[in-house]
Amino acid sequence: SRSLDIAVIPGDGIGQEVVAQGLKVLTAVLPPDVKLETTPYDLGAQRWHRTGETLPDAELEALKGHDAILLGAIGDPGVPSGVLERGLLLKLRFAFDHFINLRPSKLFPNTSTPLAGTPEIDFVVVREGTEGPYTGNGGSLRTGTPAEVATEVSVNTAYGVERVVRDAFERAAARPRKKLTLVHKNNVLVYAGHLWKNVFDRVAQEYPQVTTDYLHVDAATIFFVTQPERFDVIVTDNLFGDILTDLAAAVTGGIGLAASGNINPTGAFPSMFEPVHGSAPDIAGTGKADPTATILSVALLLRHLGFDAEAARIEEAVSADLAGRDGTFRTTDEIGDALAVRVAS
Amino acid sequence: SRSLDIAVIPGDGIGQEVVAQGLKVLTAVLPPDVKLETTPYDLGAQRWHRTGETLPDAELEALKGHDAILLGAIGDPGVPSGVLERGLLLKLRFAFDHFINLRPSKLFPNTSTPLAGTPEIDFVVVREGTEGPYTGNGGSLRTGTPAEVATEVSVNTAYGVERVVRDAFERAAARPRKKLTLVHKNNVLVYAGHLWKNVFDRVAQEYPQVTTDYLHVDAATIFFVTQPERFDVIVTDNLFGDILTDLAAAVTGGIGLAASGNINPTGAFPSMFEPVHGSAPDIAGTGKADPTATILSVALLLRHLGFDAEAARIEEAVSADLAGRDGTFRTTDEIGDALAVRVAS
Ligand SMILES: CC(C)[C@H](C(=O)O)[C@@H](O)C(=O)O
Ligand SMILES: CC(C)[C@H](C(=O)O)[C@@H](O)C(=O)O
Repeated sequence: SRSLDIAVIPGDGIGQEVVAQGLKVLTAVLPPDVKLETTPYDLGAQRWHRTGETLPDAELEALKGHDAILLGAIGDPGVPSGVLERGLLLKLRFAFDHFINLRPSKLFPNTSTPLAGTPEIDFVVVREGTEGPYTGNGGSLRTGTPAEVATEVSVNTAYGVERVVRDAFERAAARPRKKLTLVHKNNVLVYAGHLWKNVFDRVAQEYPQVTTDYLHVDAATIFFVTQPERFDVIVTDNLFGDILTDLAAAVTGGIGLAASGNINPTGAFPSMFEPVHGSAPDIAGTGKADPTATILSVALLLRHLGFDAEAARIEEAVSADLAGRDGTFRTTDEIGDALAVRVAS
Repeated sequence: SRSLDIAVIPGDGIGQEVVAQGLKVLTAVLPPDVKLETTPYDLGAQRWHRTGETLPDAELEALKGHDAILLGAIGDPGVPSGVLERGLLLKLRFAFDHFINLRPSKLFPNTSTPLAGTPEIDFVVVREGTEGPYTGNGGSLRTGTPAEVATEVSVNTAYGVERVVRDAFERAAARPRKKLTLVHKNNVLVYAGHLWKNVFDRVAQEYPQVTTDYLHVDAATIFFVTQPERFDVIVTDNLFGDILTDLAAAVTGGIGLAASGNINPTGAFPSMFEPVHGSAPDIAGTGKADPTATILSVALLLRHLGFDAEAARIEEAVSADLAGRDGTFRTTDEIGDALAVRVAS
């Protein structure tokens, strides 16, 4: 019989609330023969306030033993900026070599977008997850004085760029439109930009069936709001991907629907799935959080582990649920219940 | 009698066409007692194709002698990416220490935006122009091999950050809403981010009348499309400013209306004014280019040189012209003519 061993990091604020719904739907969607085991990890702002710890080695080790990780959201305003991001979230992405940060953007029917008209939006951003300006390289000199110099080093390797570019070509080749756009800023960031462009062009030769193009990141933001339908698969670096996927979430119904996967396709380490949104302390405890982004992240988790049919069932349930929304308020729990019922039937 | 000595770099593609209209309107708006002198500089892709030169020292020296520079657009697809950007455009910004890259965004009445509804958009981005990831620091090792490593170093100094932050506070204090938003990514780019945040918070104490807030760059892109009315003045680094101002242009009627100034407020070097758009080789020669962005850049130029009334006349003329647009096609030249007539009367 099959089994599924998931580490769960609910985290802070609405993280706890949405993860509960994610697990509810996960439980409902799995066939009876699959044994689901979940192990909660107490990590995040609350833990840090209590103990000063972000991610102790023992827990990092223990996390390695699971099939995948489901994470809610991390952080509260009482923690200095950067402490949990670098000490927990990015630490996990780097330690588990999550080089594919997968972020699909789809405008579901009946979902409101800030854009006029009804653009057809259905693209996926393949964001590099282990390099670029996110490496933590850099430092500051004469900190806090009028003579301070602070640097951030974007580190890019052919090794790191090629593996994410290949993954993106594979994904593009498997989609009906077969189109891949590289986004960078190679007219200014010439060293990193040329590396990305050269690797991209070289790998492209192995995928003649995939149509390719290149956009500077600034121009890409324009197309996100004026012609989002032009995108199919986008591959880009860690920082550009961060920026573009928040914008993508905004134009496809908001951050309440945006799912993501931090994926290590080799299986050497567990991959981690999380909504793009944060812990939203302002609405925590009110029942206003939309668990859909987390539930869609559970679908990504399932697909990553080979449960394709179950992943599709969740996505169809979300699509149907969104189509039925009429503006009536439903709590976090009610949305989770509705989706659990849909996937079970 | 007053005089105005402008260096003109029409550049390539539609650059030539829009600059002609900018000069037409400039000539029309100036009072008879102001002696206008313009000196064309043949720089850009055409020059590079002919001679291989981007910006020879003699021309850089000569440019220093003018009151200001008006630039159209630079580049064509035949020039390798980065050659003219680094060798001409950024070289000018750095050589003339254009630390204020000023980019106003205003949704004029009757102007179409990709956003639904009719948001009130009227903000200005003060983008740092001489530091950050734009310094050209970095390099690549084992270039072109599978072992390549390419770096880009974002360099930030207290000196550089403080001067742009002060300028932004001054601008915010002079506007009715008196609100300043710092945009960075200080939860990931902790060294540069903390420098920016610390300087910002320190300078803020001298401007108690200015309301301040902070947004991560990814979150800022969301608000650009969901709540653009929340912004008044934004201060940010060179790369974030590049990305945000293209998005801002997109939501306020498109890149055809977006003006910018590369300003050295000390007057030590001439400041440079240019539309945010590029040379658009695809529409060059068709008469389709909208010269409005360049004409609004002329307004910024005039205000920078103390011709406040004339700057305001151009902005009012543009506002009136846009209000009268009914979708009928007008050529580049016709729009320039119409605006020249309006500012003259
Ligand atoms: C919280 C932060 C470190 C993170 C990032 O920048 O990657 C977030 O914005 C995201 O997109 O997952
Ligand atoms: C052409 C390029 C170097 C430039 C920049 O990145 O600053 C442009 O995008 C701009 O915004 O003026």
